[in-house]
Amino acid sequence: MVSPADPLSATFAALADPTRRAILGRLASGEASVTQLAAPFEMSMPAVSKHLKVLERAGLIARGREAQWRPCRLEAGPLKEAADWVEEYRCFWEQSFDRLDEHLRELKKKEKKHGRKHRKKWSRV
Amino acid sequence: MVSPADPLSATFAALADPTRRAILGRLASGEASVTQLAAPFEMSMPAVSKHLKVLERAGLIARGREAQWRPCRLEAGPLKEAADWVEEYRCFWEQSFDRLDEHLRELKKKEKKHGRKHRKKWSRV
Repeated sequence: MVSPADPLSATFAALADPTRRAILGRLASGEASVTQLAAPFEMSMPAVSKHLKVLERAGLIARGREAQWRPCRLEAGPLKEAADWVEEYRCFWEQSFDRLDEHLRELKKKEKKHGRKHRKKWSRV
Repeated sequence: MVSPADPLSATFAALADPTRRAILGRLASGEASVTQLAAPFEMSMPAVSKHLKVLERAGLIARGREAQWRPCRLEAGPLKEAADWVEEYRCFWEQSFDRLDEHLRELKKKEKKHGRKHRKKWSRV
């Protein structure tokens, strides 16, 4: 599915799941064991482990070496790469909102003009 | 694979492919037909169309209604949602770089100390 030679694809693929995003959200508040991470989800431990493996392969989490509880922690490096890629497009969504603003201003102008001509209809506009 | 009720997962899944990211990169410079989009890739038209469908379903591109060439254009709204999600973690990667900085400063301090004791070895440090 994802080539290991393409870390950015691995990052985005790992983020394309609400459970995996929730796990990262939990780890944002500190290290946690697999059992602690599994608790909020109605999910078998193997299912949670599978998600953790995807996150680990993408470099988004690292696991401690302690024998008993191998705590997971967030590794934010790949998220920076993802943010850098998405940021390149910022001007496009800001442009879209500017255009939307412009559109709304035009609509208001028209409403006002319309209101002057047909004062009685104002309440229905 | 991705529930339509979870647009953020659909966005990340669509971005988890270098060809699809390249298509978005091309559309950042303006509208393009499927043929124009396919040109830089050694790929069959059906393969390119499949990628476009993934992007379209995720709302990352829209296609014109002109009968002859239905130009594709970038739709940046979902990218904003993706950026907003990733931005929540900014403090983590900035923290990591701060820690790296601190680590490097420590290393330099040690080098300096070491250099004073073993002046002859400076060039080898």
